[in-house]
Amino acid sequence: MPTILGQNQYGKAENRVVRIVRDGGTHHIKDLNVSIALSGDMGEVHHSGSNANVLPTDTTKNTVYAFAKEFGIESAEQFGIHLARHFVTSQEAIHRARIRIEEYAWERIPASRKASRSGGAEKAGHSFVRKGQETRLAQITYDGNDWQIISGLTDLTVLNSTNSEFWGYLKDKYTTLEEAYDRILATDVSARWRHNWTSDAQPVPNWEKSYARTKRHLLEAFAETYSLSLQQTLYQMGSRVIDSRSEIDEIRFSLPNNHHFLVDLEPLGLKNDNEVYFAADRPYGLIEATVLRDGAEAGIPVDLTNL
Amino acid sequence: MPTILGQNQYGKAENRVVRIVRDGGTHHIKDLNVSIALSGDMGEVHHSGSNANVLPTDTTKNTVYAFAKEFGIESAEQFGIHLARHFVTSQEAIHRARIRIEEYAWERIPASRKASRSGGAEKAGHSFVRKGQETRLAQITYDGNDWQIISGLTDLTVLNSTNSEFWGYLKDKYTTLEEAYDRILATDVSARWRHNWTSDAQPVPNWEKSYARTKRHLLEAFAETYSLSLQQTLYQMGSRVIDSRSEIDEIRFSLPNNHHFLVDLEPLGLKNDNEVYFAADRPYGLIEATVLRDGAEAGIPVDLTNL
Amino acid sequence: MPTILGQNQYGKAENRVVRIVRDGGTHHIKDLNVSIALSGDMGEVHHSGSNANVLPTDTTKNTVYAFAKEFGIESAEQFGIHLARHFVTSQEAIHRARIRIEEYAWERIPASRKASRSGGAEKAGHSFVRKGQETRLAQITYDGNDWQIISGLTDLTVLNSTNSEFWGYLKDKYTTLEEAYDRILATDVSARWRHNWTSDAQPVPNWEKSYARTKRHLLEAFAETYSLSLQQTLYQMGSRVIDSRSEIDEIRFSLPNNHHFLVDLEPLGLKNDNEVYFAADRPYGLIEATVLRDGAEAGIPVDLTNL
Amino acid sequence: MPTILGQNQYGKAENRVVRIVRDGGTHHIKDLNVSIALSGDMGEVHHSGSNANVLPTDTTKNTVYAFAKEFGIESAEQFGIHLARHFVTSQEAIHRARIRIEEYAWERIPASRKASRSGGAEKAGHSFVRKGQETRLAQITYDGNDWQIISGLTDLTVLNSTNSEFWGYLKDKYTTLEEAYDRILATDVSARWRHNWTSDAQPVPNWEKSYARTKRHLLEAFAETYSLSLQQTLYQMGSRVIDSRSEIDEIRFSLPNNHHFLVDLEPLGLKNDNEVYFAADRPYGLIEATVLRDGAEAGIPVDLTNL
Repeated sequence: MPTILGQNQYGKAENRVVRIVRDGGTHHIKDLNVSIALSGDMGEVHHSGSNANVLPTDTTKNTVYAFAKEFGIESAEQFGIHLARHFVTSQEAIHRARIRIEEYAWERIPASRKASRSGGAEKAGHSFVRKGQETRLAQITYDGNDWQIISGLTDLTVLNSTNSEFWGYLKDKYTTLEEAYDRILATDVSARWRHNWTSDAQPVPNWEKSYARTKRHLLEAFAETYSLSLQQTLYQMGSRVIDSRSEIDEIRFSLPNNHHFLVDLEPLGLKNDNEVYFAADRPYGLIEATVLRDGAEAGIPVDLTNL
Repeated sequence: MPTILGQNQYGKAENRVVRIVRDGGTHHIKDLNVSIALSGDMGEVHHSGSNANVLPTDTTKNTVYAFAKEFGIESAEQFGIHLARHFVTSQEAIHRARIRIEEYAWERIPASRKASRSGGAEKAGHSFVRKGQETRLAQITYDGNDWQIISGLTDLTVLNSTNSEFWGYLKDKYTTLEEAYDRILATDVSARWRHNWTSDAQPVPNWEKSYARTKRHLLEAFAETYSLSLQQTLYQMGSRVIDSRSEIDEIRFSLPNNHHFLVDLEPLGLKNDNEVYFAADRPYGLIEATVLRDGAEAGIPVDLTNL
Repeated sequence: MPTILGQNQYGKAENRVVRIVRDGGTHHIKDLNVSIALSGDMGEVHHSGSNANVLPTDTTKNTVYAFAKEFGIESAEQFGIHLARHFVTSQEAIHRARIRIEEYAWERIPASRKASRSGGAEKAGHSFVRKGQETRLAQITYDGNDWQIISGLTDLTVLNSTNSEFWGYLKDKYTTLEEAYDRILATDVSARWRHNWTSDAQPVPNWEKSYARTKRHLLEAFAETYSLSLQQTLYQMGSRVIDSRSEIDEIRFSLPNNHHFLVDLEPLGLKNDNEVYFAADRPYGLIEATVLRDGAEAGIPVDLTNL
Repeated sequence: MPTILGQNQYGKAENRVVRIVRDGGTHHIKDLNVSIALSGDMGEVHHSGSNANVLPTDTTKNTVYAFAKEFGIESAEQFGIHLARHFVTSQEAIHRARIRIEEYAWERIPASRKASRSGGAEKAGHSFVRKGQETRLAQITYDGNDWQIISGLTDLTVLNSTNSEFWGYLKDKYTTLEEAYDRILATDVSARWRHNWTSDAQPVPNWEKSYARTKRHLLEAFAETYSLSLQQTLYQMGSRVIDSRSEIDEIRFSLPNNHHFLVDLEPLGLKNDNEVYFAADRPYGLIEATVLRDGAEAGIPVDLTNL
């Protein structure tokens, strides 16, 4: 047979699970989208169609819901660790599990003033509005020995209305761009960061706190950087995270340059003093890079889109 | 000729305009998506292709950017009023203008503690993160005499984890649904409300304040209603707005019932005490209704999707 | 109570149903997305939450699947007629039913030459690839007396690489557009047409044939019109349908002008002789109009998006 | 400094270019979406913001349009080869270029019978309708020495209404799935295949013919495989391509299992003899694997989404 099977994996993708914890009248909510990918002794199912080594994707879905009940959902990372450990340790044929999770944040609806006066705080304990800002991400991979935990976020849209320049670049015969000394810099932050927790022997990080702090560092570094290029801003954001969070060794960014073009109002007899912009869709610049702790080895997969 | 021209309109859709106002180091941002639709003496352009009565859609686009400079963007509604008035009063052939606007909200990035100590408040004055919750909507229509101003929002996702029941319904031979006495109620609020400001002779409402208060009333009424049906919740949300905001005479809702199905964990040997839910995509219930001030005439177009 | 209930409707939206008919080894497939909207005596469910007049949306979903078995799916229109008639005639509280349907077309995968030689025609009888061109639409409304049947399509993307001009338009102080004497004309055709079949007493049209012919007329009229404006092309497409299809009295279009801008290559030392274009996303011109058979009354709802 | 720069790249993404070739009245169209990613000596722009080694993304966009004029677009692959060679050979600081291309297919609008009689063939020579089936993909990578050419497609939706089973799988305490002996098998084919053309010294493949044949092999193998698992179907599709196309050494698939669940009509008093299905959205099985020519080394990046 002139063909061979290469890398492969399978599982149930996009299991939407919502977990409610009821603490009297005060409820807590976790809202996840969980995707399972398993690999191992899977030659036969590809060659002959024998499913003897295949745990059905339907079973992997059931496991997500069962574990939401059995373990609860403390954090996306911890939930993924439970799942990955289970698949690898419970089935001989499965050698590796990769769990990808999207998390959607909710905030409480504030009680109305009238309701508050008559004990409304309790009323609002079960009412939520989706925050709708970034989507939080986690990827947990386990091979029976080592863990790889990648956290991240996507669609965190930020904009600086000044403190951005772009000049001094290479010019060739196709270059027409004019240099800019005060432009809008805007991007949708998509980032993944790798934790240096890789073994059950190490103390487990506080995943919730780690995420909240990392997001704050990303926003602050974006705001505080006087930018000569989006690459420079990216590096400042990355090194801020590495410098500030000892549990993180690597961070990878994919940053579209959301172009805001100053509209030429001169033909209309008006002066546009950095006031009116056209927000363009396509094409867009796309800047991608990894920032590493000195001495760390790169470990985040190159293509971020799936995570 | 056996065919005749019916209702028609044209214009440039989805003009993305970002307006920055610089108040020293503190900047302000307005971020809109503006769509223009004009109608009037347009028989010839359809029949013979003569454009003699057609103001190019490109010109309507230019006007959006020029007016962002000339008038600024105080609110989506006020900006639409400037545009609609201009098209109807400046061109004899144009008898009606309808301006539709989406607005995306931004919030300031908080300065880091370190930056704050050294005057960081100024630094954060030009740095924004997109809020990412609902999209605000406005539709302004003018025919040279009367104004119709519709405000609204879409994609405001809310959830009550209790205080919702559904029982006592009609049953026929296709009914299999079991009655529910404690379910999750979740929806993506899409609403449009019509102001009773219709003439330049009336005092102009404070559009920004009106929007903020209306959104708050919608959230509070959703949270505070003990629900026996999504229709009942809808009506409570609508009447709360009409009762509380004298400038609004009508509100129309389109509320998908975002089903959260309690997962049956019994076959897995587990009890699910209203804890673990599957968040379904399709199909979904869809509840649509208008709530009117008594005596008001309905005026919001039936299909909300385009607005 | 100072508020009253206005127009309202409810039902299950986006029921995805696939129906296979097995004719020996040759299978036939129908693939629909069906949305139900019912209205009638629904005051109580909005005011008190009593569901006594409410047939659950879950039941309307079950009915879609049951009818796919009981009646089969001859055409989207005929399937919708069965459903609408059922809801209105079987429940006293329901006075009007509106069924909206999207249909996705499939074509057979051609058998391989090798398979054909050994009787492969049979093999390919159960294998399909989704055509992926336009989405077919139907809306069926019934109030117990009259039928309104609207058919349509969306996302039929067409392009003429010549035979399109645009000049002789109105100019004001915001006009900067240059006249065009040979441009690309491209649009995503979105159209809805109303049949004059309104009563069970009339002979029922052949819905499948009517759709196929109407689509062909739309394509041919687009291709054969030398266009001085997109409005003129729209009117030619509409009158071609009305002139050619006696069962159709009205057709409404929503046609985005998918701008293809000739790229200015002069700064790069190249001449662009109508060869290289930038296909823009936003903003876009949007042309909307109805063409009617002379004497017919307009009946298609203004906003097409939901249908 | 405790942080270092890892892998990085930048460029203009999603340049939409349409190229018309006019052969008398018969026009030809190529419609691409081109994304550029460059890497090389980019330390300084990340560290200090110096753009001295940065060719602006705007220039890479201009180059796409200039090359569409200078070289034409024979195929996506050939166009990408021109671009990649240019960036690497013309700028010392750029060491690697990766060009990703999406291509959208168009077909001619058939002339109407009436127009044909009077020479209508010419009329239809400039009129196109978008085919709307799969999106064709290409990725061209060049480092100054070797080429890597990956072709592919996405969103080719296929369905077998029989000849698919699933049984004999692993069962654990979370398994509830019943075995299936006649089910629908449906997927959206997403595939990437690597050509063994890597050097300018080799004869260049006919990219257009290679694509057309590979697509046909994928469809035929899907249709002709009696499937015991989607993995088996995947492997048959892959080995059919490798066996039939000597220019291809590797093919990687990402195949969602588009579940079509047989609707349980028994509670409604009806028998469902493999006739009526519910087409589900989420969750879905996801099967991913590579098939290689024996002896070839794997070279396609693991995550396919971006390509």
